[in-house]
Amino acid sequence: MHEHNEHVYKIIEVVGSSREGIEDAVRNAVSRTSESIRELRWFKLEDVRGQLKEGKVEYWQVSLRIGFNVEGG
Amino acid sequence: MHEHNEHVYKIIEVVGSSREGIEDAVRNAVSRTSESIRELRWFKLEDVRGQLKEGKVEYWQVSLRIGFNVEGG
Amino acid sequence: MHEHNEHVYKIIEVVGSSREGIEDAVRNAVSRTSESIRELRWFKLEDVRGQLKEGKVEYWQVSLRIGFNVEGG
Amino acid sequence: MHEHNEHVYKIIEVVGSSREGIEDAVRNAVSRTSESIRELRWFKLEDVRGQLKEGKVEYWQVSLRIGFNVEGG
Amino acid sequence: MHEHNEHVYKIIEVVGSSREGIEDAVRNAVSRTSESIRELRWFKLEDVRGQLKEGKVEYWQVSLRIGFNVEGG
Amino acid sequence: MHEHNEHVYKIIEVVGSSREGIEDAVRNAVSRTSESIRELRWFKLEDVRGQLKEGKVEYWQVSLRIGFNVEGG
Amino acid sequence: MHEHNEHVYKIIEVVGSSREGIEDAVRNAVSRTSESIRELRWFKLEDVRGQLKEGKVEYWQVSLRIGFNVEGG
Amino acid sequence: MHEHNEHVYKIIEVVGSSREGIEDAVRNAVSRTSESIRELRWFKLEDVRGQLKEGKVEYWQVSLRIGFNVEGG
Amino acid sequence: MHEHNEHVYKIIEVVGSSREGIEDAVRNAVSRTSESIRELRWFKLEDVRGQLKEGKVEYWQVSLRIGFNVEGG
Amino acid sequence: MHEHNEHVYKIIEVVGSSREGIEDAVRNAVSRTSESIRELRWFKLEDVRGQLKEGKVEYWQVSLRIGFNVEGG
Amino acid sequence: MHEHNEHVYKIIEVVGSSREGIEDAVRNAVSRTSESIRELRWFKLEDVRGQLKEGKVEYWQVSLRIGFNVEGG
Amino acid sequence: MHEHNEHVYKIIEVVGSSREGIEDAVRNAVSRTSESIRELRWFKLEDVRGQLKEGKVEYWQVSLRIGFNVEGG
Repeated sequence: MHEHNEHVYKIIEVVGSSREGIEDAVRNAVSRTSESIRELRWFKLEDVRGQLKEGKVEYWQVSLRIGFNVEGG
Repeated sequence: MHEHNEHVYKIIEVVGSSREGIEDAVRNAVSRTSESIRELRWFKLEDVRGQLKEGKVEYWQVSLRIGFNVEGG
Repeated sequence: MHEHNEHVYKIIEVVGSSREGIEDAVRNAVSRTSESIRELRWFKLEDVRGQLKEGKVEYWQVSLRIGFNVEGG
Repeated sequence: MHEHNEHVYKIIEVVGSSREGIEDAVRNAVSRTSESIRELRWFKLEDVRGQLKEGKVEYWQVSLRIGFNVEGG
Repeated sequence: MHEHNEHVYKIIEVVGSSREGIEDAVRNAVSRTSESIRELRWFKLEDVRGQLKEGKVEYWQVSLRIGFNVEGG
Repeated sequence: MHEHNEHVYKIIEVVGSSREGIEDAVRNAVSRTSESIRELRWFKLEDVRGQLKEGKVEYWQVSLRIGFNVEGG
Repeated sequence: MHEHNEHVYKIIEVVGSSREGIEDAVRNAVSRTSESIRELRWFKLEDVRGQLKEGKVEYWQVSLRIGFNVEGG
Repeated sequence: MHEHNEHVYKIIEVVGSSREGIEDAVRNAVSRTSESIRELRWFKLEDVRGQLKEGKVEYWQVSLRIGFNVEGG
Repeated sequence: MHEHNEHVYKIIEVVGSSREGIEDAVRNAVSRTSESIRELRWFKLEDVRGQLKEGKVEYWQVSLRIGFNVEGG
Repeated sequence: MHEHNEHVYKIIEVVGSSREGIEDAVRNAVSRTSESIRELRWFKLEDVRGQLKEGKVEYWQVSLRIGFNVEGG
Repeated sequence: MHEHNEHVYKIIEVVGSSREGIEDAVRNAVSRTSESIRELRWFKLEDVRGQLKEGKVEYWQVSLRIGFNVEGG
Repeated sequence: MHEHNEHVYKIIEVVGSSREGIEDAVRNAVSRTSESIRELRWFKLEDVRGQLKEGKVEYWQVSLRIGFNVEGG
């Protein structure tokens, strides 16, 4: 029985942001993505950028690849 | 208020082509993508390829990552 | 006539696995993806990983980028 | 009118450090850079390193690429 | 019958240039390469550089990998 | 005599944009850079991005590394 | 309780080979590594090479990064 | 006297995790590694991943390359 | 005597394909290349792609860099 | 007291050359750069190229990233 | 008149070795390549490896990409 | 008989330095590593850095990946 063979993930890429910092931007991206996709399983942080204003970081911006279970999989 | 935290982009990858050239292939890819996804915001050109025939470029082919606003975001 | 200009691919990324080996994991990923997306055209193998248990490979795991025709394109 | 064509950024690379953590090291690098360059607009985090001493992180060190408006641009 | 197995491409790398622009440099490189190698099939643009003189682009220079059918293949 | 040993280039990174296309964005970036730095010699195109609006490319944006002679070198 | 914090993997890099093929070379590398290190958990295939002789593949050679539990962890 | 020539570092790669965040995962990895290897000197953050559960980050996971003095060196 | 200094390899890049799988595609590419070049010594697998049709892999396609002795070397 | 937080490096990229070899080209690039920037601290060799003439290396050319203390930092 | 457009380089990749060191291995590779190809113009050092025996470097081995004028070009 | 299948290498990463130059730093790293590990077989040069002082290179620093036979293998 190859029932595990049925196990397939899809990966999407999202960009999230936060005034607070890197981890908060990750949590925002994950939280918003979970509203439309169930069964999120892992992420990989692809890059970290930020908007600057008057010598300060105004927004932290992260891009993530997020893996999720294909439903019925 | 962290209303900006709500701001999340998704990124998709598309491949477009043109007989004319690189920029036309980008415009075709963007135009077709915009038929099904609203609120496209930016692209990044990932690679440029082409089909050759009888010593000439028959098609230019570009792959793009395109970022768009998550609706309701 | 620029009818070819209409030709646009989308690319998705999926992860498949198998107890048997690399090619079987690719076939599983493709087969499951084809259940929800028609007109798959090509894949590129992005990486190969595996789960180990008691000094043996328990699962082979591949991640693929898969290109498909945009319907109506 | 191509007035926007006049819009050009320069990018510099800086390394900042902090005893506190990654975000504090970014803020230090941005803050010091803003003393000599006005109109900083964005950064990209290129890598994160650290000095270790007696099994602890003594300093966090980040390298950033920072984009800024060319004055008069 | 594995007649398709016989199908093998070779890839060469060439650098072409043009005073006009990127696409013209690609076409020059392809055209010159086709004088000595028949059956060119595709290219991939590897990088784009240029020579500058008095604040202007004097030459655009592209490097391409070009795939071609092995004759008799 | 090692007079050639005296020959040293510096490299800067700039971002230019244009409503017209990739080559125009390169020319804008080079032209503006040449206002403050003489003796620009070559560029390498690092990436191509763009801003999208209503399914169209609003601006093309290129980042370049530009090499120039160190004066007196 | 941060008991999970105790969970740390080490990663080693090994090269294995086989006359049979890629998966057999992976299995050989894993099997030999497991003789001296217990608790191997996963691998990532880093590259695939081979020795050729008289127009045939004599050996397949894979390099792997293998993660294992730190004992007591 | 080339006494400095004697100075050689080794580099190991480790993966650490934390429920709290990125910096805490780094500190855990460093702390655990320091139990078996003295004279850790620096780290480089190679990647950041995480496990997701019910739309939240359950664990942050970092992989680090850590340099240490070869004893007697 | 620096007779070994005379030892020089050239490297070519080829693409091979197979209906059977990855290793068969490698063997086809090597076999066909050996018809025109003697003294092939090693290969490195650069990437693995495939053509898909009706949810199945129709062809596996590999690109290889192959090193060979320069004759008389 | 976070006086160390004040410690910020800038990084510049330069290209140097030499008829003698790689290390001499590095020393030339560093020496010329030190004429205008004090407090150079480290370099990283980014690439090595060369000009050829009549089957010989006429010039060795290195590109370096060089880090230096920001004055007053 | 686009006579410069005619200017096309080809690039080949070679591996050379030496008992003496890196630069000598480069010179060997260039010298041997020049026996069969005229008009070599530049090289780029792609990687440096070596064979070890009894704790010493037995051979230095470099791989180079070498650009040359296409004859008649 | 698959006796060759038993052949497995491990790879370690080390950093060596020298006041003299790149090759001397490689030799130092290899020599010191050979004091604790027998059967070193090959290295790959991963990067070259250096410490600068008063406009001169004070130390050359190389990082190497070194492959060695697993004993009994």
